[in-house]
Amino acid sequence: MDLQVRIARLESLEAIRQLKHRYLNACDLKEVETIRDCFAEGEVDIDYGPLGRFQHRDGFIELYQRLACQLRVIDSHHGANPEIELLDDDHARGRWALSYFNLDAQTGVTRRLGVIYDDRYQCIDGQWKITASRSRILAEVLGRHQP
Amino acid sequence: MDLQVRIARLESLEAIRQLKHRYLNACDLKEVETIRDCFAEGEVDIDYGPLGRFQHRDGFIELYQRLACQLRVIDSHHGANPEIELLDDDHARGRWALSYFNLDAQTGVTRRLGVIYDDRYQCIDGQWKITASRSRILAEVLGRHQP
Amino acid sequence: MDLQVRIARLESLEAIRQLKHRYLNACDLKEVETIRDCFAEGEVDIDYGPLGRFQHRDGFIELYQRLACQLRVIDSHHGANPEIELLDDDHARGRWALSYFNLDAQTGVTRRLGVIYDDRYQCIDGQWKITASRSRILAEVLGRHQP
Repeated sequence: MDLQVRIARLESLEAIRQLKHRYLNACDLKEVETIRDCFAEGEVDIDYGPLGRFQHRDGFIELYQRLACQLRVIDSHHGANPEIELLDDDHARGRWALSYFNLDAQTGVTRRLGVIYDDRYQCIDGQWKITASRSRILAEVLGRHQP
Repeated sequence: MDLQVRIARLESLEAIRQLKHRYLNACDLKEVETIRDCFAEGEVDIDYGPLGRFQHRDGFIELYQRLACQLRVIDSHHGANPEIELLDDDHARGRWALSYFNLDAQTGVTRRLGVIYDDRYQCIDGQWKITASRSRILAEVLGRHQP
Repeated sequence: MDLQVRIARLESLEAIRQLKHRYLNACDLKEVETIRDCFAEGEVDIDYGPLGRFQHRDGFIELYQRLACQLRVIDSHHGANPEIELLDDDHARGRWALSYFNLDAQTGVTRRLGVIYDDRYQCIDGQWKITASRSRILAEVLGRHQP
């Protein structure tokens, strides 16, 4: 394979990981427009199980705002174990683990999830975007802040 | 250093991280053959402290199946902080942190470990494999699911 | 962009992530000189909020030794979601999430923090160093080891 192609492949892996990291940090920081921008503008398949399934990013953003954009909701979305596979120059898929931790600042109830993401990515006009994301909850543990 | 060598070095770092990520995700998803395939086929040194020490991957797989392949065992193996060092074209070592979280779905008991891995990797027939892995538990915290 | 420049850019991203990973692992393993070496020797801006603000790495190291270098202090600093942006050949910034978990081995009290780091890095004499690091606590949950 020529050097140009090999470098482009490494750059795509970097860009895709950075995309997901930007998404996850934005979820914790409640940066709504950054979250929206991580998904493709056209048809997507966001399947977050019990949270719902969305064919357009705006439907998901609406839910996110309703659920997360409250002072009492304190979230940690920490990605781990990315396995990114490039399918061609403009398409990729990825499997990630997610360590999700939620604190309800009003009640002190905590919720820890172990999650697996199966994603699809596409490079559109030179920018990698999430076109599909399916999350499955492997583990759920409830607890309580004990000051 | 010529460009070809520098690209090969970056590709090796990607492949080694991906190898460990595949291993950790497979441990959570109980994909036994994927776990087996992450280790070299010949002599290895898997030293998981209190869990045992294994010179062949099959011995470890047998233990993994006995301990983990039960419905009540719900594991999260989330890797962090990879420090990968290439020793030559075909050999590398790595230090990782692991956030391990176990839920016993029958009793609701939880067990959180902070772990450090010291690994060795070898590229065999073009595929990076784990040839040695030593884990040390730095922190252990028991808890309980409080529904 | 020519290939040489693109490879150098990928190498810098690798080196900066590895720097932070080395820092975080060293914090858990209490490798004081490794921690010191992760920061630039000259003026830095380490702003760890309630822990203090330091213009020289030695001031922070002194605090670290006082707080962390005790047998009862068992820490996990697990980095996640690195978003590294190269500003020029020798300067970069980065945003990370941190999953911090502390166990007081004497009392059994646990403390989990969700943290965001905003960092600056500089390549000095061929080595990337942390020149600024600001951490903000997003989430804090106290608990207890329940043996």
